[in-house]
Amino acid sequence: MPVINFLLDSEKIEFTCDSGTNLMEAVVEAGIELKAVCGGAGSCGKCQVIVKEGEVNQLAQGSLSPDKLKQGYVLACQTEVIEDVRIEIPPESRLSEHQIFVAEEAEDEELLTEKEIQIAEKIELDPLYKRVDLELDEPTLVNNASDLDRLYTGLNQRHDWPGLTTSLSVMEDLASHLRDNNWQTQVSLALANDNYEVSELNAPDYEQPDYGIAVDIGTTTMVLELINLETGESVATSGLYNKQGRYGDDVIGRINYAKQNDDGLDKLHQAVIDTINELIDDVVNKESIDYADIKTAVFAGNTTMSHLFLGIDPNNIRLEPYIPTVNFIPPLQAEELGIKIKEEGWIHYLPGVSSFVGGDITSGVLATEIGKREEITLFIDIGTNGELVLGNQDWLITCSCSAGPAFEGGGIEYGMRAMSGAIEFFEIDEDTYEIKYSTINARPPIGVCGSGLIKLIATLNEVGIINRSGKFESDFEHERLREREYETEFVLVWEEQAGIDEDIVITENDIKNLLRSKGAIYAGIRMMLQNMSLTEDFIEEVLVAGGFGNYINIDDAKKIGLLPDLPNDKFKFVGNTSLKGAKMSLLSKEKFDQVNEIANKMTYLELSAEDQSQEFMDEFVSAQFIPHTDLSLFPSVTETNSDD
Amino acid sequence: MPVINFLLDSEKIEFTCDSGTNLMEAVVEAGIELKAVCGGAGSCGKCQVIVKEGEVNQLAQGSLSPDKLKQGYVLACQTEVIEDVRIEIPPESRLSEHQIFVAEEAEDEELLTEKEIQIAEKIELDPLYKRVDLELDEPTLVNNASDLDRLYTGLNQRHDWPGLTTSLSVMEDLASHLRDNNWQTQVSLALANDNYEVSELNAPDYEQPDYGIAVDIGTTTMVLELINLETGESVATSGLYNKQGRYGDDVIGRINYAKQNDDGLDKLHQAVIDTINELIDDVVNKESIDYADIKTAVFAGNTTMSHLFLGIDPNNIRLEPYIPTVNFIPPLQAEELGIKIKEEGWIHYLPGVSSFVGGDITSGVLATEIGKREEITLFIDIGTNGELVLGNQDWLITCSCSAGPAFEGGGIEYGMRAMSGAIEFFEIDEDTYEIKYSTINARPPIGVCGSGLIKLIATLNEVGIINRSGKFESDFEHERLREREYETEFVLVWEEQAGIDEDIVITENDIKNLLRSKGAIYAGIRMMLQNMSLTEDFIEEVLVAGGFGNYINIDDAKKIGLLPDLPNDKFKFVGNTSLKGAKMSLLSKEKFDQVNEIANKMTYLELSAEDQSQEFMDEFVSAQFIPHTDLSLFPSVTETNSDD
Ligand code: FES
Ligand SMILES: [Mg+2]
Ligand SMILES: [Mg+2]
Repeated sequence: MPVINFLLDSEKIEFTCDSGTNLMEAVVEAGIELKAVCGGAGSCGKCQVIVKEGEVNQLAQGSLSPDKLKQGYVLACQTEVIEDVRIEIPPESRLSEHQIFVAEEAEDEELLTEKEIQIAEKIELDPLYKRVDLELDEPTLVNNASDLDRLYTGLNQRHDWPGLTTSLSVMEDLASHLRDNNWQTQVSLALANDNYEVSELNAPDYEQPDYGIAVDIGTTTMVLELINLETGESVATSGLYNKQGRYGDDVIGRINYAKQNDDGLDKLHQAVIDTINELIDDVVNKESIDYADIKTAVFAGNTTMSHLFLGIDPNNIRLEPYIPTVNFIPPLQAEELGIKIKEEGWIHYLPGVSSFVGGDITSGVLATEIGKREEITLFIDIGTNGELVLGNQDWLITCSCSAGPAFEGGGIEYGMRAMSGAIEFFEIDEDTYEIKYSTINARPPIGVCGSGLIKLIATLNEVGIINRSGKFESDFEHERLREREYETEFVLVWEEQAGIDEDIVITENDIKNLLRSKGAIYAGIRMMLQNMSLTEDFIEEVLVAGGFGNYINIDDAKKIGLLPDLPNDKFKFVGNTSLKGAKMSLLSKEKFDQVNEIANKMTYLELSAEDQSQEFMDEFVSAQFIPHTDLSLFPSVTETNSDD
Repeated sequence: MPVINFLLDSEKIEFTCDSGTNLMEAVVEAGIELKAVCGGAGSCGKCQVIVKEGEVNQLAQGSLSPDKLKQGYVLACQTEVIEDVRIEIPPESRLSEHQIFVAEEAEDEELLTEKEIQIAEKIELDPLYKRVDLELDEPTLVNNASDLDRLYTGLNQRHDWPGLTTSLSVMEDLASHLRDNNWQTQVSLALANDNYEVSELNAPDYEQPDYGIAVDIGTTTMVLELINLETGESVATSGLYNKQGRYGDDVIGRINYAKQNDDGLDKLHQAVIDTINELIDDVVNKESIDYADIKTAVFAGNTTMSHLFLGIDPNNIRLEPYIPTVNFIPPLQAEELGIKIKEEGWIHYLPGVSSFVGGDITSGVLATEIGKREEITLFIDIGTNGELVLGNQDWLITCSCSAGPAFEGGGIEYGMRAMSGAIEFFEIDEDTYEIKYSTINARPPIGVCGSGLIKLIATLNEVGIINRSGKFESDFEHERLREREYETEFVLVWEEQAGIDEDIVITENDIKNLLRSKGAIYAGIRMMLQNMSLTEDFIEEVLVAGGFGNYINIDDAKKIGLLPDLPNDKFKFVGNTSLKGAKMSLLSKEKFDQVNEIANKMTYLELSAEDQSQEFMDEFVSAQFIPHTDLSLFPSVTETNSDD
């Protein structure tokens, strides 16, 4: 059997496999996190590795340049191992292992500060798992209700709990528990299916706190908060890349992977459960608590994530007419999914609206309370899909625009996620075209992340290197601008300064992709406004959610026409509202009910539906310019930038 | 390790055990069904076996006569095996293995025929598990509800199903099932917790019938009916002795066994589950169906049985103030209890009212519809406890009187259950005192069963052998009447005619026990009437339920003062109403809801409560005569029987 020696930055991994093994699979098995935006279809070109020694069997070469081919680059997903090889994994192909930014750490003074949602202050604590002190009458020959009826009566004197149920294991303990504790008890009630379940009985002096977890299941990153259910305090937070990343970068890549591999669905399902369990391990260790001290959990994530979380085939999400199997997910018990909290603990997944507007968005609407205000608010969550919500207390409309992965670095030759070594900021001298940049963690640059790309496009246009169509100005000449086969590229960082062995460039095609992405989002905003017969002026506030939002500069975003041209003070970054809404739901039954109402109330605007698609296409085409075909939509931008 | 050779009627069983093993346990382990009325406490004396060879260690000898001791009799429950032995199991000590009478077979022309409750005619079929045909609209970009919402909408167009839920396994199949079947489907809905669960999806042409089971969990015998849920027809019936019998004959014996043995509760729980599974095996084999074709189950049984069925400690049932852990049992899934039907199938156990009025009685009230009539009905279920219900559409009162096991043969020296060889009928010649009798299955007599005992007391009194106090008439002399230590006995069958090696006798103490039993039941009836300020005349109908009811003669029962002195045409034998009510509940959600209302509505009269106990004691004492102290209560009996 062939032996593979993987060479990484700082380690070597030896791995033995069968002859004919797919190299991507071997990489994954060996525990190395490799980029795979397209899910192993051979189209994204992100899974490049270098064959240093030995022969491999290449099934396809994708878009690898002749130069790279010469250096031994192959696409791991299109390569079979047939003999002993040495494989180098270049840093730009790896999913960096650095810690996910969680709320506290993400703060950065140069950026607009996040509008912090002070959950504990806002809501009245009424968690989905709670303890009630009870003192029951001792039974007599006359007052002779069963123990369970006595318990129910006691509970209902305190509150009207609809349809109480009790698990067999609690019934087994009930008689001796009540008698041993002299008819005083602490009863734990857990929200199950529209009703409460008597979930635990504890002695009156039992003091161990109950915990819950709120989890944002992002396609890319997952964040978990461990919450003390009695105080409402967040006691620990942990973040990790979604382990599904190795099977595809975006939801479409993952759906493809599930479709094309026999055990694809199982692997994706297991990957998300494993990630959750690792996050749980982390907070349990940090706080030295038991797994069983975590009594319940609320999850929020997009619709593909909900399907993979449940182990349900997500294929119809991808196929017209884009029908999810389930939007409202009945509660399940932790052991049914293998989630490492109290085995019988109830798991809630916030409801979605459609295949492309999921529980992360309804959670965001809950957290931001845009459905409770008089004023009209625009909510934007930019990721591979841009999910948009517009509305107020009377109506809520939502749509999803396939922005594509450009802002996450996908489809951009040197694009990458916001990881160490990613350029996040540019300055180009108007005269010399000298370029200054900064990178995340101040590491030598290896690519450009989303916020860097927005800044870059704005700046290239501002200094006159590219025109409003995103093409290089025909009269611009500089050593940085050069032709290669079928492509024009502009050098951002020379090899000498770069953290990789080549120049970092941006191509005309990259710019085209970026304009498509921003155009799709802007067109989505326009479509929602038009459907409600409104104009931009009616928008009182724009809330930008998601990790990405933390790093974009509003002025740049307006300059390129990604965000509408409204005064800066109308924009707020609201951070991970998916996580915040999950936490609110965990801590308040009222909020939990509200998120269900929100999901019911939201009108989904399907942009590919017949009555919308031509209009959307027109809006989309008009938005492929910097900032837009119709300059009157961007008055402030065109004022200051009248030279293009 | 010692080897035990068990000698039975027709077989030999060899069994190896550790030295010191309890002989009762060895018997049970060897698969032999031995009587153990007191649950192995050494007090009932029913577990007699004969040591033919070898030495044993006797811990106690109980009430074994010197004669029996000489013959090698020991109480199995009080004996330890220390070396190789040969043990004979006499027939009177065995639980006979003959088939339990199920409704069809129990008919007997000489007895009043059972008032057959024609379930299928009476109720509108709406079973707790049902299939609904659905034709759904194909989704489009505009009509783009999730698959599950589409299914729910389709179902709700047919009927208002409150709070529908869906299991994960159904969600996993849903998308492909709907698409493969062109949006036509048969949806199976199962009643879960106050709501319906989408439990299965089948192709529109799927025709396999769904089955359910209704089960009466009697302390002694258990009967199961397999029912086709579409037609309401009973397709197979099976009966077995409750395998708990080896651990105690009545509920108090079993509660003691659970209390006194470390794994007693487990064993009792497993025994009832094993019995149920054997009954299921039987009907599944008879009908050649799959276990998974049985989709749901309804059980009825007394409160001790419900606790043991669930594996809940029944000890408080036995201890004042007699509090059960649970009367209303939440539905459970079959696999949780290890019941061999469809794993996720829902299990319903009909609700009880108190520790001594259980789901078998509420089921009986449902089946007989006494809570729907204008006229007042008395419902009697005679077993170890006599459970009584009195009432009409406006009120229902119930009580339980500890009749003791006399009518089941307990506490009666030659008493036995209605099994092969039991004397069920007597005739005593007034002049010669010659005795004629008949036995079940015409086997040589080995004891007397309940109906035989009633006939015997009535006859002994009629011919002047015993007086109204149950004592042998002082002036009666006959070779059949003889003294022994502290006891007077009357020979019923001489050894030569008997199926055992001794005379079959009735003692004065036996008669006292029988008068206690009948007195307790009659006093219970009186207490209920008095609590409602009524007299016997108000009773329009007396319904006698239970297997025992099938074999008693009304005239004899009135003669001894067991049943009130009402015209014969007011008495009806209604058979196993526990089973019938379970079947009705299985087939009709309306009936299922009714039985819950019944349990809520019934007023339980605790006869040992302070305000009742003195009155009850008076009534009880007055009823220790044949037929009663107050002869005016039995005018018809005293008329024809004026010679005592
Ligand atoms: S005396 Fe042995 S079981 Fe009762
Ligand atoms: Mg997100
Ligand atoms: Mg019964």
